[in-house]
Amino acid sequence: MSYSFNDRSYISQQLENHIVKVHSIAKNANTKGKYIVFGVGSTQLLSAAVFALSTNLSSRANVVAEAPFYSPYKEQTDYFETARFHFVDNLKNVSDYGSEVIEFVTSPNNPDGNFKKPVFEGSSVQYIYDHAYYWPHFTAIPAPANEDVMIFTLSKLTGHAGSRFGWALVKDKQIYDRMLTYIDIAELGTSRDTQLRALQLFKAMQQGDGKEIFQFAYKTMRDRWEQLSQIISLSTRFTIQEIPPQFCTFFQKVRGPSPAYAWVKCERKEDSNCTEVFSRAKITGRRGSRFGSDERYVRLSLIRGQDDFDLLIHRLTDLVSEEN
Amino acid sequence: MSYSFNDRSYISQQLENHIVKVHSIAKNANTKGKYIVFGVGSTQLLSAAVFALSTNLSSRANVVAEAPFYSPYKEQTDYFETARFHFVDNLKNVSDYGSEVIEFVTSPNNPDGNFKKPVFEGSSVQYIYDHAYYWPHFTAIPAPANEDVMIFTLSKLTGHAGSRFGWALVKDKQIYDRMLTYIDIAELGTSRDTQLRALQLFKAMQQGDGKEIFQFAYKTMRDRWEQLSQIISLSTRFTIQEIPPQFCTFFQKVRGPSPAYAWVKCERKEDSNCTEVFSRAKITGRRGSRFGSDERYVRLSLIRGQDDFDLLIHRLTDLVSEEN
Repeated sequence: MSYSFNDRSYISQQLENHIVKVHSIAKNANTKGKYIVFGVGSTQLLSAAVFALSTNLSSRANVVAEAPFYSPYKEQTDYFETARFHFVDNLKNVSDYGSEVIEFVTSPNNPDGNFKKPVFEGSSVQYIYDHAYYWPHFTAIPAPANEDVMIFTLSKLTGHAGSRFGWALVKDKQIYDRMLTYIDIAELGTSRDTQLRALQLFKAMQQGDGKEIFQFAYKTMRDRWEQLSQIISLSTRFTIQEIPPQFCTFFQKVRGPSPAYAWVKCERKEDSNCTEVFSRAKITGRRGSRFGSDERYVRLSLIRGQDDFDLLIHRLTDLVSEEN
Repeated sequence: MSYSFNDRSYISQQLENHIVKVHSIAKNANTKGKYIVFGVGSTQLLSAAVFALSTNLSSRANVVAEAPFYSPYKEQTDYFETARFHFVDNLKNVSDYGSEVIEFVTSPNNPDGNFKKPVFEGSSVQYIYDHAYYWPHFTAIPAPANEDVMIFTLSKLTGHAGSRFGWALVKDKQIYDRMLTYIDIAELGTSRDTQLRALQLFKAMQQGDGKEIFQFAYKTMRDRWEQLSQIISLSTRFTIQEIPPQFCTFFQKVRGPSPAYAWVKCERKEDSNCTEVFSRAKITGRRGSRFGSDERYVRLSLIRGQDDFDLLIHRLTDLVSEEN
């Protein structure tokens, strides 16, 4: 089995067609006029995009993300730091390092599930839109996303994180070519076994009108969020993020939130380490500092298996009932 | 499907066991006391090893490979160049940049199929042994390889290049941990679908005594090399590398060469671009300069499909017969 397909690319045309179709069903991205790059999860594509966007700039690129943000943006950029780019923790310091900016915009955001807008603007700012969670089961879809560089992942669509399959929709041919160069130099292509698995999943998903997976997953996520919200509403010790109801073009109605994570704040002065508070109640969360945020926050996952979720609800109920 | 297996690693224990077994059958590597890292082909592991070995050095590491060498060593190191390492083209210049050296040692070598020894020695020299071709079908196996960092790939074992699966055998726990960190930060693990495919291939290979694949592939490669050598022996215009017969512990006898590539030299003064000479005869080779070598050389592949090989032999026969 060769490195490449018969058309000499590393990218299955058939799989590409199915990706275009899933976006048209979910109404979450405009694929028209976009090039598609495959990657090892979205993770590899984040790095590929930073390398691609930092080529031929007038000065070293400042890679930024507004807190709270998904930690790999910083961890990966720090790890691969080159003369062409570096991660800047404090957004106020960006101007010290020159005007070139590459901003990660995660929308809906991980950890808090809210839509994000860029912080930086101007001709020397480029964006990497991480749309991992921009699917009808996690958020209302107000309109198809149509940015220059958009990244998606199978992990948050079907849950097959271990398959390590992601894709980028890229408007500019030159950026697309550079991202392909990254994939080529880093790994000589994308596993064809993984592509085959992804293709089977897309085919299964797209049986009938292809909407069933979103309806099922939305119902599950919405139900989980309501259970969790209900418990937290009884608490004065903890609060969670607010996500306003919004019109969704997929469901053709205003719908409430169904995010992948709860972004919990410990409100008591003495609970300055929120992760520890939950840890003592045998609830595992990801600490606020991982997201460039305060330790007063912790992220709880709502996308684990049903047993894990039931346990979370059980222990959270106990924790909140202790307040009285 | 989660990112990791139940033991929280990205690495299938079952697949690891099969890798240990294939090395014991082929007698080509000592796996005892070695840690195993999986990667996207050997390609990803080359980079992971450079990052791992260049951590905490006293000065910037000079990454080197003696020509002729497999071009990704340079291309990848240049592409990912950081403050911690850079590729040095001219081995004579290495001392200008400090004493730390990371040397790629490809044995048998790509392109020429001969065993290689390191060029550099000393306490500040570290090696990455690329043993992609150290299998009984490509070379005699004088003894099991037992170096600190050794890299192998499914691509050159079963031919499944498109699966993108490779592995490293690593002696030092710290280097192993750093390579895992690379995989984690770059891509959050290794595709489980790819691992499953690799496992199926190993299982199929290891039916019976597990030697059949090597016997079959050796016969094929040996036969191809003899056909090609026979034609070149009629030529005064072209020469190919010499590979001495050697005792092989797998076959328990002295055996002749069966390399993956012919490293052809154009001997006529006017044939200074050997690739073009072959190109005019409709034979596609990889140019000498890609290997840090002279354009008077070209690499011809002997590991393509049978149709391609037959065509190569046909056209080469014509080309050589033109000499008279």
